[in-house]
Amino acid sequence: MNYQDFFRSALDQLRDDGNYREFAELERHRGAFPAAICHNGPGEVTIWCSNDYLGMGQHPDVLAAMHNALDRTGAGAGGTRNISGTTHDHVQLEAELADLHGKEAALLFTSGYVSNWATLRTLGARIPGLTILSDALNHASMIEGIRHSKAARRIWKHNDLADLEAKLAALPLNAPKLIAFESVYSMDGDIAPIAEICDLADRYNAMTYLDEVHAVGLYGPRGGGIAERDGLMDRLTVIEGTLGKAFGVMGGYIAASAELCDFIRSFASGFIFTTALPPAVAAGATAAVRHLKSSTTERTAHQARVAEVRARLDAIGLPHIDNPSHIIPVMVGDPVKCKFISDTLLRDHGIYIQPINYPTVPKGTERLRITPSPVHSAADVDTLVSALETLWTQCQLARRPIAAQ
Amino acid sequence: MNYQDFFRSALDQLRDDGNYREFAELERHRGAFPAAICHNGPGEVTIWCSNDYLGMGQHPDVLAAMHNALDRTGAGAGGTRNISGTTHDHVQLEAELADLHGKEAALLFTSGYVSNWATLRTLGARIPGLTILSDALNHASMIEGIRHSKAARRIWKHNDLADLEAKLAALPLNAPKLIAFESVYSMDGDIAPIAEICDLADRYNAMTYLDEVHAVGLYGPRGGGIAERDGLMDRLTVIEGTLGKAFGVMGGYIAASAELCDFIRSFASGFIFTTALPPAVAAGATAAVRHLKSSTTERTAHQARVAEVRARLDAIGLPHIDNPSHIIPVMVGDPVKCKFISDTLLRDHGIYIQPINYPTVPKGTERLRITPSPVHSAADVDTLVSALETLWTQCQLARRPIAAQ
Repeated sequence: MNYQDFFRSALDQLRDDGNYREFAELERHRGAFPAAICHNGPGEVTIWCSNDYLGMGQHPDVLAAMHNALDRTGAGAGGTRNISGTTHDHVQLEAELADLHGKEAALLFTSGYVSNWATLRTLGARIPGLTILSDALNHASMIEGIRHSKAARRIWKHNDLADLEAKLAALPLNAPKLIAFESVYSMDGDIAPIAEICDLADRYNAMTYLDEVHAVGLYGPRGGGIAERDGLMDRLTVIEGTLGKAFGVMGGYIAASAELCDFIRSFASGFIFTTALPPAVAAGATAAVRHLKSSTTERTAHQARVAEVRARLDAIGLPHIDNPSHIIPVMVGDPVKCKFISDTLLRDHGIYIQPINYPTVPKGTERLRITPSPVHSAADVDTLVSALETLWTQCQLARRPIAAQ
Repeated sequence: MNYQDFFRSALDQLRDDGNYREFAELERHRGAFPAAICHNGPGEVTIWCSNDYLGMGQHPDVLAAMHNALDRTGAGAGGTRNISGTTHDHVQLEAELADLHGKEAALLFTSGYVSNWATLRTLGARIPGLTILSDALNHASMIEGIRHSKAARRIWKHNDLADLEAKLAALPLNAPKLIAFESVYSMDGDIAPIAEICDLADRYNAMTYLDEVHAVGLYGPRGGGIAERDGLMDRLTVIEGTLGKAFGVMGGYIAASAELCDFIRSFASGFIFTTALPPAVAAGATAAVRHLKSSTTERTAHQARVAEVRARLDAIGLPHIDNPSHIIPVMVGDPVKCKFISDTLLRDHGIYIQPINYPTVPKGTERLRITPSPVHSAADVDTLVSALETLWTQCQLARRPIAAQ
């Protein structure tokens, strides 16, 4: 066995399939985001694919809270949550998040990935006889947690209530069940029928686990997500969110009953055996959550900017999925052209949009996933639309909209 | 099925067994660590159980780098490494870490936990026929990654070369194998026979995976860990480390060949589908790694402080494991007394040392895990030793040393 040869040939295969990823090396300008330097590219660029959806990563309150925490308490937490790593900043953030979602408690993790993986893995492994009913398009972190739990699982068709109900009805009413799904799906931008899923959960005695990572901060009067916007937070057993997208920093969490959070806190390997988030990260996230609880300016501007980009793309006939969220997937439908457009946007137009190819999305649905934000200017939009129009012609891509979900 | 009842009874069981964890809510004073406020305790305390082993979490270079990065670039990375989240600060840190370990490349993860879990899971799942030979006392993150990979596994007796060799010899010479182990084991503080394990790896055509999280920054002329101290870095396939202990910030990494790092980068779900570390965290870690490459002051002072505490404990006959590392496990051997001593140290003496009970350590080996640092003063040591002496008498605990490993 030659290990190096094995690694090399696996990477060659990726390259041959067009799936080898190259990372753009960026350096944002604080206060001028979405502007950034692309160190391994053309220099100055505008980022159009960030998940810092509201630009909170450069909000003065967030940065002040982080500076303050560094000055007050230093850099790292210095230990796991149990062994010297629980700080005042963590406790405050957990209280803020419980309040955001109207739950008794919240529990922080080092990332949204870890919160999904550790929570679903622990529930699945620890509740005897649990069946997890998982939406077919759930995020990798949920899939890994469910698989790793070794619990029984049923994959239901994406956002398909009839299929979910059929799978629920096939299980004994008294058997423990958990329905795991997302609110906003990140690649298509479509939104789950949360109320109807909760109805089914009630009817079949199931818990619900809702991933709101692409919605927290962005929807609802206080930024609690789609479930808050629709008045459904109290119907969900677990709401999971991230501090690394609209809240602009890093980390993940669940909000749920005091008992459920304490159960995960007490049994989840991925929570227990890892160094806690730096206090400054927790403090920055707390500032972002607090700000977006009271300010709707960012959310309103965000929705307006998204609507504007969509209208401008429609005006020139560029196909994009017409979903009800803030994510604009512009469909290319060919991996080579998708990468070519992305490369050319970067090199010739200073526009950075990472191409999304298989396996992140199905083959034939390769796309540019555009995420407008309140910090993109009207001039940024003009430049983007004009560059896309030029490239669409150059690549001889179709201009009729593809069918929306 | 009543879910709340289930969670409640599982927590009650933990409490009945004496294994329910309560977290001390701390707030360190920057520049005055190990001093901190314990918000849910007696107020001012001295922390004696932190993994910020050298106090780098308050080093001026580290804090300046973090302030600077916040000012320069903002709070979060804004995306996964692939989608807008690779920053100049990440790339610089990876280069610094590759250099630290004399490897071609390094790859950052959001935590040491995730680096172990994701790397071992990916190697185990992707290399056909791989058998992972895992030390019996490996960390939870390694165990989870190995289990989740579904690769064949053999657990060898802790640090037992004969048992490892027997298990290697029982496998076909040409079959792919990976020996996974740690340098410094965190609960007993003992150190693996790295050279001899590498000899066996050579003889039986195995890769080696060494977790140095409790050693990086602390051992070796440039802080590369035990493998650097012993001149063995080039013999290891993968060296895994953390930025959250001696380096004082947060994050984890592997250092290895360019191909191996690229393989993990390209296939590990736990690397790909998660928001990158904040640039300020990466910048702080880079500053810590750079400082400890050139400065040996902290390492020398650390070893001296550890030796002093050990000698003072010996002078009053307090039993501790006489290991060759910086971790001083003071053995209590009873869960109730261990928690009582910890509670009393905190309440009456302002000394915070979290009790370590089952399941983190075997029953009957309950302990106080003391981690002296260069920032503990002579007066701190006096207070600690005197308080321990008082409590040892009060609890009628034996004073003869237990057998070392």
